[in-house]
Amino acid sequence: MSSSKRVADSTVRRLSLYLSFLEELEQTGASTVSSDMLARLGGTTSAQVRKDLSIFGSFGKRGLGYDVEELTSKLRGILGLEQSWRVCVVGAGKLGLALAQYPGFAEKGFHVAAVYDAAPARIGTKWDSLTVRDARDLAGDASAEHFDIGVIAVPSEAAQSVADQLVAAGIHAIMNFAPVQIIVPPDVVTRTVNMALEFEALSFALANWSR
Amino acid sequence: MSSSKRVADSTVRRLSLYLSFLEELEQTGASTVSSDMLARLGGTTSAQVRKDLSIFGSFGKRGLGYDVEELTSKLRGILGLEQSWRVCVVGAGKLGLALAQYPGFAEKGFHVAAVYDAAPARIGTKWDSLTVRDARDLAGDASAEHFDIGVIAVPSEAAQSVADQLVAAGIHAIMNFAPVQIIVPPDVVTRTVNMALEFEALSFALANWSR
Repeated sequence: MSSSKRVADSTVRRLSLYLSFLEELEQTGASTVSSDMLARLGGTTSAQVRKDLSIFGSFGKRGLGYDVEELTSKLRGILGLEQSWRVCVVGAGKLGLALAQYPGFAEKGFHVAAVYDAAPARIGTKWDSLTVRDARDLAGDASAEHFDIGVIAVPSEAAQSVADQLVAAGIHAIMNFAPVQIIVPPDVVTRTVNMALEFEALSFALANWSR
Repeated sequence: MSSSKRVADSTVRRLSLYLSFLEELEQTGASTVSSDMLARLGGTTSAQVRKDLSIFGSFGKRGLGYDVEELTSKLRGILGLEQSWRVCVVGAGKLGLALAQYPGFAEKGFHVAAVYDAAPARIGTKWDSLTVRDARDLAGDASAEHFDIGVIAVPSEAAQSVADQLVAAGIHAIMNFAPVQIIVPPDVVTRTVNMALEFEALSFALANWSR
């Protein structure tokens, strides 16, 4: 069982949002920020901000707010962004390519160490400094190269089998971009970015709009 | 005010999930499905399934479940997927390219009609059948070509200004892939796919895991 389960997904999501606002604030040269301002930016209440942050210790001084630089650095630490994570991407199609070269990805500590594909035509092709590897080598490579995060960027019908391979390879964190739910053991954390779902929400709104 | 506001985002999300399971079921040749099964697949309760579907009329027969083909077609209609939507993508980088060529996107009725960029080096380049247009032409094109959905695939610092352009061009549905919140008028629906947030959730879990 992981200790992270004790912190709700919604809290982690807000911590990420607070951090992105703090990073913007830092650039403007602001030195302090109130829980009120963080709340407004994050679409929540100042009580919620204080509660979210209190889980991880005591920050800020009553009446003075939070020190931007200190809180930014603490949040980076809490979110695991002061460490570097080794990422392997399975699926060397356009989505995989976009992800591997996503600006700000390496900056945040996510280093794409390897890209895999099952299609012979893709294996061996070059992506900047990476060469697409044979998906059959994943398990062997993973134990030698210690991948932290596996990214699924393959079509839906292959997603579960790739997830199974990642789990078998000892990877405990999986990001799934296929528009299906994948099933993993309880000691593996997974997030699905389902773009179809998001576009359908727009389509629903357009179709049901009364103007 | 839009009538779609009366239906919660979480309901629309579940309707999308039900539809994706039904589409899989259809391929297996199944002719009926129980609310129990839809509930299990969607990670909810059968009471919730019945409640979600009842908003849109009466489906299914007590004891017989739902007709797969009928419910699939009804859900497609409800979600606006029997219509075709004209999409314009702003930002002709790798992410924009991946989106414009996302498999299943056109299949669901989302047709990328135009791609824009502000960078002179990108304007005029060919993407399959599309030629990247000058972002300054967006407003003029939008009124002539009736874009339904605008996609923001530019860096964070440009996202709000692109959102403002899309709104000024009369577009009422915006999909934002920049990792910032954009502000739009109440008659515009927007969804943000924030990949940084999702990756930070994995990083948080890895950093806080007690193994």
